[in-house]
Amino acid sequence: VAEHPVVPTSGALRPLGLDSVELGSGFWGDRRELNAAIIDHCLFWARRMGWVDNFTVAPERRRGREFADSEVYKLLEAMAWNGGHPAYEELAAAVASAQHDDGYLNTRWPGSRYSDLEWGHELYCYGHLIQAAVARLRRHGDDTLVRAARRAADHVCARFAEAGVCGHPEIETALVELYRATGEERYLEQARRFVERRGGPALADIALGRSYFQDDIPVRRAGVFGGHAVRALYLACGVVDVAVETGDRELLEAVIAQWDRTVAARTYLTGGMGSRHTGEAFGEDFELPPDRAYSETCAGVASVMLAWRLLLATGDVRYADLAERTLYNVIATSPAIDGRSFFYANPLHQRVPGHHPDTGEASIRAYGALRAPWFNVSCCPNNIARTFASLPGYVATTDDGGVQLHLLTACDVRAELGDGRTAALSVETGYPRTGAVTVRVDRAAGGRWEITVRVPSWAEGATLTYDGHAEDVTGLAGGRAETVAPGTVSVTADWRPGDELRLDLPMAPRWTRPDPRIDAVRGCVALERGPVVYCAESVGEPLGDVVVDTTAAPEETSVLGEIALTGVAHPMRTGSGWPYGSASGGTTAERAPVTFVPYHLWGNRGPAAMRVWMPER
Amino acid sequence: VAEHPVVPTSGALRPLGLDSVELGSGFWGDRRELNAAIIDHCLFWARRMGWVDNFTVAPERRRGREFADSEVYKLLEAMAWNGGHPAYEELAAAVASAQHDDGYLNTRWPGSRYSDLEWGHELYCYGHLIQAAVARLRRHGDDTLVRAARRAADHVCARFAEAGVCGHPEIETALVELYRATGEERYLEQARRFVERRGGPALADIALGRSYFQDDIPVRRAGVFGGHAVRALYLACGVVDVAVETGDRELLEAVIAQWDRTVAARTYLTGGMGSRHTGEAFGEDFELPPDRAYSETCAGVASVMLAWRLLLATGDVRYADLAERTLYNVIATSPAIDGRSFFYANPLHQRVPGHHPDTGEASIRAYGALRAPWFNVSCCPNNIARTFASLPGYVATTDDGGVQLHLLTACDVRAELGDGRTAALSVETGYPRTGAVTVRVDRAAGGRWEITVRVPSWAEGATLTYDGHAEDVTGLAGGRAETVAPGTVSVTADWRPGDELRLDLPMAPRWTRPDPRIDAVRGCVALERGPVVYCAESVGEPLGDVVVDTTAAPEETSVLGEIALTGVAHPMRTGSGWPYGSASGGTTAERAPVTFVPYHLWGNRGPAAMRVWMPER
Repeated sequence: VAEHPVVPTSGALRPLGLDSVELGSGFWGDRRELNAAIIDHCLFWARRMGWVDNFTVAPERRRGREFADSEVYKLLEAMAWNGGHPAYEELAAAVASAQHDDGYLNTRWPGSRYSDLEWGHELYCYGHLIQAAVARLRRHGDDTLVRAARRAADHVCARFAEAGVCGHPEIETALVELYRATGEERYLEQARRFVERRGGPALADIALGRSYFQDDIPVRRAGVFGGHAVRALYLACGVVDVAVETGDRELLEAVIAQWDRTVAARTYLTGGMGSRHTGEAFGEDFELPPDRAYSETCAGVASVMLAWRLLLATGDVRYADLAERTLYNVIATSPAIDGRSFFYANPLHQRVPGHHPDTGEASIRAYGALRAPWFNVSCCPNNIARTFASLPGYVATTDDGGVQLHLLTACDVRAELGDGRTAALSVETGYPRTGAVTVRVDRAAGGRWEITVRVPSWAEGATLTYDGHAEDVTGLAGGRAETVAPGTVSVTADWRPGDELRLDLPMAPRWTRPDPRIDAVRGCVALERGPVVYCAESVGEPLGDVVVDTTAAPEETSVLGEIALTGVAHPMRTGSGWPYGSASGGTTAERAPVTFVPYHLWGNRGPAAMRVWMPER
Repeated sequence: VAEHPVVPTSGALRPLGLDSVELGSGFWGDRRELNAAIIDHCLFWARRMGWVDNFTVAPERRRGREFADSEVYKLLEAMAWNGGHPAYEELAAAVASAQHDDGYLNTRWPGSRYSDLEWGHELYCYGHLIQAAVARLRRHGDDTLVRAARRAADHVCARFAEAGVCGHPEIETALVELYRATGEERYLEQARRFVERRGGPALADIALGRSYFQDDIPVRRAGVFGGHAVRALYLACGVVDVAVETGDRELLEAVIAQWDRTVAARTYLTGGMGSRHTGEAFGEDFELPPDRAYSETCAGVASVMLAWRLLLATGDVRYADLAERTLYNVIATSPAIDGRSFFYANPLHQRVPGHHPDTGEASIRAYGALRAPWFNVSCCPNNIARTFASLPGYVATTDDGGVQLHLLTACDVRAELGDGRTAALSVETGYPRTGAVTVRVDRAAGGRWEITVRVPSWAEGATLTYDGHAEDVTGLAGGRAETVAPGTVSVTADWRPGDELRLDLPMAPRWTRPDPRIDAVRGCVALERGPVVYCAESVGEPLGDVVVDTTAAPEETSVLGEIALTGVAHPMRTGSGWPYGSASGGTTAERAPVTFVPYHLWGNRGPAAMRVWMPER
């Protein structure tokens, strides 16, 4: 079984986990290197906030929100995927010591178990405990934490056989994964029950409405993701897992339809999801304000989890495309370049440079214009840590006939093909800085097999070149560069070691315009280069009221070692007093340069104003 | 002293209260007629929710939020301005019965007085109690409620002499009004202390930040209204009151500068204020999303209160202009045409028709797309009731030389001029349906005096006609129509009974465009006619994705007896799937009619989609 966060027993593609993929130096490899520091940072804060001690102190000394246990579990999961940590055993022992004889485990509600399923987060916490245990089981084997998680899962199956769901979905996907890792079918059955019960309704009404926790309509009948974005996306992960393991095609198709509409009407250019601060929620279709975008980091994590599950189930490259977009423009945006502070929300427009949060204290506000070292609700840093730790698992897949490369990043890949043959590839690339991606065959499996490379949806005009000694190469004419369309390109051959495929992607900056139904960015353009969304950034002062001239090609410059782009803009004509009248403004003849940096880089040079969408002249 | 909610002892203009102005049949007179039913509706719900009983039941049976007492006080104020109510005495007696010996009065916190100034609302509740008492004192005289309010105010002066402010401003303006009504200077001094203390800071930090309750910066140093909109505007009312009564010109100028910037950058076309659901707050400059506009009804009420105070202090017609805009497009929008349900928030764009709230229960959500009969936080209906009850006080003012008409509505006005002479006018008009406003002199004061009429800021090309027998008319050539500029027009004469001035306002619909810095409505137009903002409304279904053709003049039709306007639109070209690409949409050649109704009328024909700002072709 692959060492991977999601290992379905069937589906179009099989994951290649951390045992099969090793990242080299590059955009993602460097971030996984940084993750050791991120994990230590998260551990420092989890201890400082008292969340680790919660498992061992007297109840009246417990600190933190009702879901504080889950932060420790996410951190344990990160440690597990990262190959262990000196503090792992101590933390796992502390967690196990707090477990009741019957398997109940929660530091917040010992005397009033399940008295508030709407807000109590007990099952949610189990979900993260189980995910940590699954990671440990797959990377290391049985241990204290795994036994605690299984006892908790058994307790859940007994206690929630007949009724009840959690206000925050998460346990559904975790139980299916535990089923996959242990073979115990009761976990799958319990996950199925949770999925089917939801929307009955199964929970009490709340001020935000039942849609907040996806209890307004059964998931099978919903047409789009709605309500709290992280809840909706974690639930969808669990629904896909249940559908795949039970062979419920209708259920899978329901999620696919919801994903289609969500991506077409409720997703930011960055891949971010969740457009409302109130309820941290999806808005209506085409309600995508850039300034008040919530686009929570954790929703980005959950969206990648979901996209990967749908990719494995269907093989459809659209899911890998969105995962890549979200990884580069939400996941990579959250942590500062030193890994010591994080965005919780990821707006696409910041009018006024924010104030530096007091770095000595956890921020009580998730709404800052600057990264903070920690939050009172600090899901995002831990979610980044567990995602970075499992990054190698999101690069490639295999099926009986070959290997598929989804994330174009420097790495070594080893894959077992269907008939027991083993293939090995390595990828060399400076992507996304440069557009050349070279795939080299390091070990030939013997006989014909297929290499599939994703061609990103924006990459019109990409070319693929074959350079090698194999005969009977199908899918490409040997020895020549050939234009390939966005989607995937597959080449089958009796590969020889040293054979190479080179994908050349067009990396010229491109201006992107929104669907006219997205009211909030009407008349605006964004700048993209490769998979990276850019933003105009002004450090320390407002951006100025300018309109960009898209007829002028942006010039390459450099900011913090990354490629920046300088474009031409013109000041708006603005008035004063009452801001409504018969005439529209127009621009002056002056020219003002405007510098765009990769969106994931913004806010790393101090308080800044920023906008992804610029008014177009 | 005028029977008016605000009676400064100095200023450019003097209010003419309910004893001096009587509304005739028309837009506002009809609403004041309806107010008797609104007051009964509010009383029914205040009883049903238990908020009236709270004053007499045992503490453990108390119901409602921490500020529920204030709802009864606002209702008592409405009853007082409305000339009394059969239930008034009973309610006043209940309130007085709950007062402690030392003057403390609050049904929520008897055992833990002032233990939570940030959220406790005790001083806020006193503020509304005092405003009700001032109304009663001015319209009727001393009574049970007045005595209770004075005892509470004395208690506040003693308890808060040295430190403390309320998390929700309101008592500041109330104490100044009580000073004005009683002559007791300690109330003014206490109000001054509250104003000066604020922003020290004087309160604890909260998750929403101290800006939420205007404790982030002293009011004297603030540059713009920020934080919770109702809090900010109530506070500003109190600040103007303190500044006027203490002759603190610097303090007055500070509020004027804050108002200027707020109106130029943080105000909706409707006059609505507050663009964020989170914190019910002002956003940054030019952050004015139409769909997520909060524009709370109560913020509209508070804005009119503030504008009227600034008008009285300065005589500047800009304040009357904004008050009119807010009255027609926020205040008049909240109540349904039958006065039995209310908008709490007043967004300018509703994408999807909402669901009817269950009219049998109070709505727990203030975010509905439909009016609800009541809310768990039900400030808005009571605030409408007290505003409608005092409407005659917002029509006209006087000074030593004459009478000023600010709100162009059918009415009779009687004014004492500076030298003891009395003048009487009557106004006949169908405004805002029609543009003719006839001012007739019913009683000549004897000698020369001045009639001033406001010409709204949008009324380019208005004409004024004099028809009468007075001699030596200055400000206008007699007998002829004359074009007058927006602002005010003043005519001085030795008026004779029967003399008439007729203002003719241009009532052709006009397309209005936003300042280019308002990102959320870039490329859009709104339709206005006279002081009324229009909106495209589609009952029962989405509006369709259309672009309006402003070269075609809208045609007049009728909806619910009001003037509707039908314009020409064209469907957008829209795509499917990923909503971002290299091309922008454009429109098709089809024509689609789009019907605009007065914004204040929307949602009266059932669930509807609506937008004030339409994309312009």
